[in-house]
Amino acid sequence: MEVQKILVMTGGGDAPGLNAVIRAVVKRAVLGHDWEVVGSVESFNGVLDDPMRIVRLELSNVAGLLMRGGTILGTSNRGGPFESPVRRPDGTIETVDRSDELIRRLHRIGIDAVVSIGGDGSQRIAQALYEKGLPIVGVPKTIDNDLDATEMTFGFQTAVETATDAIDKLQTTAESHDRVMIVELMGRDAGWIALSAGIAGGADTILIPEIPFEVDHVAMHVKRRRKAGHHFSIIVVAEGAFPLGGTALTVKEREPGRPNPILGGVGRWLGDELEARGFPETRVCVLGHLQRGGVPAAMDRLLATRFGVAAVDLVAEGCFGEMVALRGDDIVSVPIRDAITRYRTIDRDHNLLRTGRGLGICFGDVVPRS
Amino acid sequence: MEVQKILVMTGGGDAPGLNAVIRAVVKRAVLGHDWEVVGSVESFNGVLDDPMRIVRLELSNVAGLLMRGGTILGTSNRGGPFESPVRRPDGTIETVDRSDELIRRLHRIGIDAVVSIGGDGSQRIAQALYEKGLPIVGVPKTIDNDLDATEMTFGFQTAVETATDAIDKLQTTAESHDRVMIVELMGRDAGWIALSAGIAGGADTILIPEIPFEVDHVAMHVKRRRKAGHHFSIIVVAEGAFPLGGTALTVKEREPGRPNPILGGVGRWLGDELEARGFPETRVCVLGHLQRGGVPAAMDRLLATRFGVAAVDLVAEGCFGEMVALRGDDIVSVPIRDAITRYRTIDRDHNLLRTGRGLGICFGDVVPRS
Amino acid sequence: MEVQKILVMTGGGDAPGLNAVIRAVVKRAVLGHDWEVVGSVESFNGVLDDPMRIVRLELSNVAGLLMRGGTILGTSNRGGPFESPVRRPDGTIETVDRSDELIRRLHRIGIDAVVSIGGDGSQRIAQALYEKGLPIVGVPKTIDNDLDATEMTFGFQTAVETATDAIDKLQTTAESHDRVMIVELMGRDAGWIALSAGIAGGADTILIPEIPFEVDHVAMHVKRRRKAGHHFSIIVVAEGAFPLGGTALTVKEREPGRPNPILGGVGRWLGDELEARGFPETRVCVLGHLQRGGVPAAMDRLLATRFGVAAVDLVAEGCFGEMVALRGDDIVSVPIRDAITRYRTIDRDHNLLRTGRGLGICFGDVVPRS
Amino acid sequence: MEVQKILVMTGGGDAPGLNAVIRAVVKRAVLGHDWEVVGSVESFNGVLDDPMRIVRLELSNVAGLLMRGGTILGTSNRGGPFESPVRRPDGTIETVDRSDELIRRLHRIGIDAVVSIGGDGSQRIAQALYEKGLPIVGVPKTIDNDLDATEMTFGFQTAVETATDAIDKLQTTAESHDRVMIVELMGRDAGWIALSAGIAGGADTILIPEIPFEVDHVAMHVKRRRKAGHHFSIIVVAEGAFPLGGTALTVKEREPGRPNPILGGVGRWLGDELEARGFPETRVCVLGHLQRGGVPAAMDRLLATRFGVAAVDLVAEGCFGEMVALRGDDIVSVPIRDAITRYRTIDRDHNLLRTGRGLGICFGDVVPRS
Repeated sequence: MEVQKILVMTGGGDAPGLNAVIRAVVKRAVLGHDWEVVGSVESFNGVLDDPMRIVRLELSNVAGLLMRGGTILGTSNRGGPFESPVRRPDGTIETVDRSDELIRRLHRIGIDAVVSIGGDGSQRIAQALYEKGLPIVGVPKTIDNDLDATEMTFGFQTAVETATDAIDKLQTTAESHDRVMIVELMGRDAGWIALSAGIAGGADTILIPEIPFEVDHVAMHVKRRRKAGHHFSIIVVAEGAFPLGGTALTVKEREPGRPNPILGGVGRWLGDELEARGFPETRVCVLGHLQRGGVPAAMDRLLATRFGVAAVDLVAEGCFGEMVALRGDDIVSVPIRDAITRYRTIDRDHNLLRTGRGLGICFGDVVPRS
Repeated sequence: MEVQKILVMTGGGDAPGLNAVIRAVVKRAVLGHDWEVVGSVESFNGVLDDPMRIVRLELSNVAGLLMRGGTILGTSNRGGPFESPVRRPDGTIETVDRSDELIRRLHRIGIDAVVSIGGDGSQRIAQALYEKGLPIVGVPKTIDNDLDATEMTFGFQTAVETATDAIDKLQTTAESHDRVMIVELMGRDAGWIALSAGIAGGADTILIPEIPFEVDHVAMHVKRRRKAGHHFSIIVVAEGAFPLGGTALTVKEREPGRPNPILGGVGRWLGDELEARGFPETRVCVLGHLQRGGVPAAMDRLLATRFGVAAVDLVAEGCFGEMVALRGDDIVSVPIRDAITRYRTIDRDHNLLRTGRGLGICFGDVVPRS
Repeated sequence: MEVQKILVMTGGGDAPGLNAVIRAVVKRAVLGHDWEVVGSVESFNGVLDDPMRIVRLELSNVAGLLMRGGTILGTSNRGGPFESPVRRPDGTIETVDRSDELIRRLHRIGIDAVVSIGGDGSQRIAQALYEKGLPIVGVPKTIDNDLDATEMTFGFQTAVETATDAIDKLQTTAESHDRVMIVELMGRDAGWIALSAGIAGGADTILIPEIPFEVDHVAMHVKRRRKAGHHFSIIVVAEGAFPLGGTALTVKEREPGRPNPILGGVGRWLGDELEARGFPETRVCVLGHLQRGGVPAAMDRLLATRFGVAAVDLVAEGCFGEMVALRGDDIVSVPIRDAITRYRTIDRDHNLLRTGRGLGICFGDVVPRS
Repeated sequence: MEVQKILVMTGGGDAPGLNAVIRAVVKRAVLGHDWEVVGSVESFNGVLDDPMRIVRLELSNVAGLLMRGGTILGTSNRGGPFESPVRRPDGTIETVDRSDELIRRLHRIGIDAVVSIGGDGSQRIAQALYEKGLPIVGVPKTIDNDLDATEMTFGFQTAVETATDAIDKLQTTAESHDRVMIVELMGRDAGWIALSAGIAGGADTILIPEIPFEVDHVAMHVKRRRKAGHHFSIIVVAEGAFPLGGTALTVKEREPGRPNPILGGVGRWLGDELEARGFPETRVCVLGHLQRGGVPAAMDRLLATRFGVAAVDLVAEGCFGEMVALRGDDIVSVPIRDAITRYRTIDRDHNLLRTGRGLGICFGDVVPRS
């Protein structure tokens, strides 16, 4: 089969660099292969809607995208083609499997291959569509950097920069005003952002999902710092961190969209617990969506661009069902099937953790020497 | 009296540029007048504590301070000399007036004049000490920029940059993911930060303390945007904004430290109200202390430096009881007494508001044309 | 006359915020007045070219422009309508006056008023066209902030931030490596950028066009710092600064586009002179166009937006021949005629200069105390 | 031997993250091993000078260093202990080998081990001292990222961010004003910074030392873009890039400090060449030292911190003559001897180059398809 027309779509949460991938896909497809490129608006909804919302993507459409956060195609949290929400006459919503219809529609408009840029959920859908015969390749997106198949994903480094910058901003206030500052960062199952930004920002305590913490240890660490003359503390906590004895969400148990068991967020919960233990000058900052936006860091633009070019080349080589990935200094491809089944969390003896412990950072898990 | 030794202190909440003022005071006093400079740690507490916590400030101590947020002297929220907290034998805390003792101690260590860098509360204390005979000059600090005596205070522009950067980061996610993003910014009595950053960041709705808002108007504005094809909205809300019919906190009624009447913050309250009105994709970001930290913007370093130099010159001229201020392109001085009694809020017909309305920004106060 | 259609154009060198003005003009004209807006590509060339290069500007065209440097309309250095370059049959270029033709063409396509966003040169053209009967209003642009008619122009603050950031970056290297770092900044006739960024960045020496300098004084200042143990120096020099006895370019003598009399730039010239005086570790950084680009600072976006809205309102009120300007905290209008005849340079006793001298900064004009 | 006291020094050119390494060394040595740490001022000169310039480094000395560029210890370009410059009675300078004296002095002040943070030159000295029996470990520093022994060095990512930011700033001006912008970046022997920042910044042409270029090809690429309607170009050129037929400086021939054979820099040379070929609107920006300074990027602080901790652990394990290095996601060690003999330049088929070519970027080496 000779490819003449490809469709690109973006799925899931935001990540800095999505637009850079779209740009690279279009530039590579148009300049290198003379293909036509179209984009589906809001994941596959653009194809499934009536009328279809498909946009032609030419070189002029992707000018200036390197610097822009977000995705010009939009995304959707509405179920995807296998669980497409349909409003019934009585007003209730049911979900129906429209995957066959999606493939028919793609065929009807002449799509020879699909580039699916998205996270976990999007790649599961991509794999299922591939198994139904759709020629599709994947580009991994996870701001948490928790996919085992690739050593790095775009967006992660921007998130770490944003988080570190926030810690920097809070540090001087904490120090000048004797505050305990709690910064809640992203990371539901893996603490990569919190651990990286925490070390880079000089945090005193870092709490991650991989290491259940005890509030008393955290409190003791703050107290020991005070005794040593440091009347402030910076505590970085991943949103998925939880206290020992709390519900341990292992990777296997994880459900997309499931909130942290601690109502209102672990950051605020921890703030209340510390106040109750005699640290009234505690302040909580939940960084939230700020980590998903902004002008992408140069290294993320670079990775996103490499991924986009490589994805088009996978299509050209007919390597469907594959996903691009970074290995060492090279871009390789892995079966999407493998990618969606193995997550990468922080091992107990990972060098980053050893580095943190070497600096005397508290991880909430051992009683500090008194 | 010939001045030979001055004391500098910083009071109140953090603001980018405090260190730049300290640096300028030291450089000007040492290089220009050959005075000795000391700093009191944690406002006047450093003088009142036993042993005193007073640090000698030489040129080497202030190198590199231009770029540093916070204050190397620390501040204190503990009452000040007129309401100094003292622990009684039974463990309870009472407040006593130690102002005379403060003046005696300053005299004892040979302080000829004091430079008080601080906000509202600090300048009230400075005025009271001045009326008791202490030679003191003031440098105004209010991140909210709500002092009538000066056209601009340092820290404000950095806060506006930080807030605008946050809006930028949220904008692309909002647009890509069809979200209503609420950004809560600082501003308890005056909406300068929210109005400035809101316009600079391209917000669709801006809610400020000066204009009580109706949630229904805000909701209607979001709905009208949707009809026009914009499935996202950016709502900027000052922490002191409140709904019509809520408790109107006028400037006269303001009490330092008094929280917004809406429990948990107006941002989250508004988010809940909008969700209840059918906008489930609402996200709230409370920027909080991020606005008080960080490397000061160049324009703030410049203003802080000008203030510091001018404050020392006020001391040299014997103009005590005066505070430095920006007027037009010049640095002038005003009586501290006047400065602490007049606040600057946003007039209904201020050009910034007219600009906002001219752009179609919703301020929550009038029913938009349907 | 009732306005129904306006034309907007941008002229001269780049400045951060040009796009923000365009956006505000379009939003205000479309939302507030229901006018049609078109843009002329590359100043007035878009109107004069065959075929005309005129673009319709709708709300969708200006989305996202707040953050973007440059101008979507482009500009031109080609002479303007009064000196329009025309290629003769023999290949040579002559300039002809096409101003009448421009006005006829504007009339033919139904333009009721023109918004001219540009500097010195553009406003002179605007005034001349106004005198010929064209309904036109001006928006001032000068990155050097040297127009007397307005207290501030957009772009200036971004340039100062960029310049200060560069000084910050060079400072640590200078200090760690005992270097004399010379930073050449913009400012042909006025030293506002150099003076502001120099103080904000902690420069040791600042050389501006308003104060002819002597190299020996600069060298002596570097030497005195060495003796005091500071083995590095940061020298900020405006591109228009010149040595005493050099050709003094006063404002009256200024010719647009005339280069500094010192071949190759004053920064490099000074570097050579200092090396010749025994400071081999001298490095020169010419910041150049970096100062004209980048994401506009929030305060510049704000000012640009206020100018754009106000310019449209001037059109609505029929106030032609007027230019918007900032005065105190308000946006006012001034006759274009006045604006283009008065420049604002730094007075010898300006508070910024007094601040600099108060800090011990060398301005190259007096022999430092030995 | 039990270690009780170590010495740390920094050598060579500046790189963002040097201070972060120093901080990590001190924190790890003091908190983890209870060792004493001293720093030698200006490489080993601090030890060789009379009186010695050795500073005690305690936890309080390294607070706040994560955010600071430069090195608090300073560096030196003066020859090192094997070629130490000595002034003879007649005023001339000769170089003498003071390495034995250095080792004796280190012994005399009780130094049990040395941590040498530096580039190529510093590590050669470290290896030579190690061979003479000095217990020494290395931390690699090369902003060009051209050491084969480690996959990444600190400082590189900050340099790429700074360079990309500069390209971003120039891009909008280039586009608005139809300019050819040439940006000269660092990279004498390897083009990693230019290639990475060029792709991340959306450059049209990238010239690196590994690929000799032909000016005519570059000019043709600019012309082709014009024909396609893009009246501007961004050309990124590494300082070590050279035209085909020019003097090819291979890695083997490299001499530290040797300037590019093109007088005045390849950027300006290329600008002149392009002007001569009919592109008058060419502007050149030499980024220079800006790339070596500034607040280190989070990822660089992280790597610098990991290196610092690992270096101390090497000392604790007695692994002298070794250098820390990044391999995959882990910190390992390699013999210094190996590290200083193998450089890492960009292979012709490196994925980054393939990515660039896939996007249609011109590398000056092949005639573009006409």
